[in-house]
Amino acid sequence: MSGLHEEAADSFSRQGLMTHFGAKLVEAADGRCVIEVGSADHLTQQDGMFHGGVMAAIADAACGHAAFTLAPAAANILTIEFKINFLAPADGDRLRASATVLKQGRSVSTVEARVETLRGAEWAHCGEMLATMFVRQPRGGG
Amino acid sequence: MSGLHEEAADSFSRQGLMTHFGAKLVEAADGRCVIEVGSADHLTQQDGMFHGGVMAAIADAACGHAAFTLAPAAANILTIEFKINFLAPADGDRLRASATVLKQGRSVSTVEARVETLRGAEWAHCGEMLATMFVRQPRGGG
Amino acid sequence: MSGLHEEAADSFSRQGLMTHFGAKLVEAADGRCVIEVGSADHLTQQDGMFHGGVMAAIADAACGHAAFTLAPAAANILTIEFKINFLAPADGDRLRASATVLKQGRSVSTVEARVETLRGAEWAHCGEMLATMFVRQPRGGG
Amino acid sequence: MSGLHEEAADSFSRQGLMTHFGAKLVEAADGRCVIEVGSADHLTQQDGMFHGGVMAAIADAACGHAAFTLAPAAANILTIEFKINFLAPADGDRLRASATVLKQGRSVSTVEARVETLRGAEWAHCGEMLATMFVRQPRGGG
Repeated sequence: MSGLHEEAADSFSRQGLMTHFGAKLVEAADGRCVIEVGSADHLTQQDGMFHGGVMAAIADAACGHAAFTLAPAAANILTIEFKINFLAPADGDRLRASATVLKQGRSVSTVEARVETLRGAEWAHCGEMLATMFVRQPRGGG
Repeated sequence: MSGLHEEAADSFSRQGLMTHFGAKLVEAADGRCVIEVGSADHLTQQDGMFHGGVMAAIADAACGHAAFTLAPAAANILTIEFKINFLAPADGDRLRASATVLKQGRSVSTVEARVETLRGAEWAHCGEMLATMFVRQPRGGG
Repeated sequence: MSGLHEEAADSFSRQGLMTHFGAKLVEAADGRCVIEVGSADHLTQQDGMFHGGVMAAIADAACGHAAFTLAPAAANILTIEFKINFLAPADGDRLRASATVLKQGRSVSTVEARVETLRGAEWAHCGEMLATMFVRQPRGGG
Repeated sequence: MSGLHEEAADSFSRQGLMTHFGAKLVEAADGRCVIEVGSADHLTQQDGMFHGGVMAAIADAACGHAAFTLAPAAANILTIEFKINFLAPADGDRLRASATVLKQGRSVSTVEARVETLRGAEWAHCGEMLATMFVRQPRGGG
């Protein structure tokens, strides 16, 4: 179940934003993807917590790479749109987005992601994303 | 109409993520807010364009600060949720998010933002956000 | 766990739209709510399936009543916003929305709902909602 | 600019839900669509105002038909997802959804809709939708 889908890992490594955040691809296989990032000054909003934009960015990346694991080789995944709800302050030491594909169609994939922050030894649910990805088929189909 | 609401500018300057992005608060007054950022390697997705997470982050910040300009002094603005649609590749030299408050209530504010990217001399519409902000009244009301 | 929260049932019975749809409140307790409706000509889109608006309406009602079960007596629940993804044709004989509160705050509640349609003996996942509710406290607080 | 796109009008007339609501297609051309409905007991929530599900349904239909006016003949439009914010009580005598296509792609269309309610002689802004439509090309392309 766990593991790293190779093409997904390669795509992830080419995202300058993720590298810069210091984000790690923890899992990417079988319609699931988990990304983690540690807290840092350059990831904060005005009160010193993780910025909502960081939560959104890693959740979006997790959703995209989850869809990627179910797509044909050489397909491309593009985010059509996403929505994210902020449930609690992201005030922990780490941030984790865990994405699961709800439905993978030929052209469109619907994915959800749970965002959690590590407070002490406990992961607290701080965000929830529902996203739509476009699956661009290899030869321009789709 | 243009100008910089002081408290909004102060709040913006304390967002580590925005500073780090090199984002500038261009306008913040009367329920409007404009934020701009130039392209840079650490803001990219796998194809070298602005990452969707960057578009979301500056649009979210623009929505929050737009609501801020209409809130009572010492109120705090928190993002409840937002949704963003990606309309076109954000492949320009600059990125701009322009937010407008649609309705400011006592506790809840609805804000939309248009995200554009500068290609040559033309701003192309590449993203659209619809967001909900929580207005936390000064003394714990709201 | 199952059962019918009295105030929620009363509120539901006063929704003309739900009555008219022939929708039934199947469960409402402890942050959960399930609503079902049978197929009928007046609930269709152009191809004879359940209209997306019907799916949205019962999912919205399920989310609101789920939040209601966790709110103080005499509080009022108002939908701030919702988002719904359509995963598959809602072409079954029945439609069911099952809502679960993800986080109930003093003023704001985040709720998700799964929408399913009954094809033969099997419920197929056809929609997913992520919603935000406003909890208006009894004496004008909130 | 105004007028009724023939295929759009035909599709609209086959939506049982719209007929049942008593909704009228007022305009459908050039990436725009306007739908109106009058108040009625069977369209209410618990306080006698237009139900959020009705607002969502007519806004969704308006978005779909707006995209329809820009699609190739014999293409089909399917809602991928939508989000709607409720800005003010929909307590007027009529409800109107006005949709505008923001970007029409080959497979995906992004559309926004403004929902207003008629109080006395004035239309008040009570809802805002941002939606994504799938354009299914005539011969299974897309």
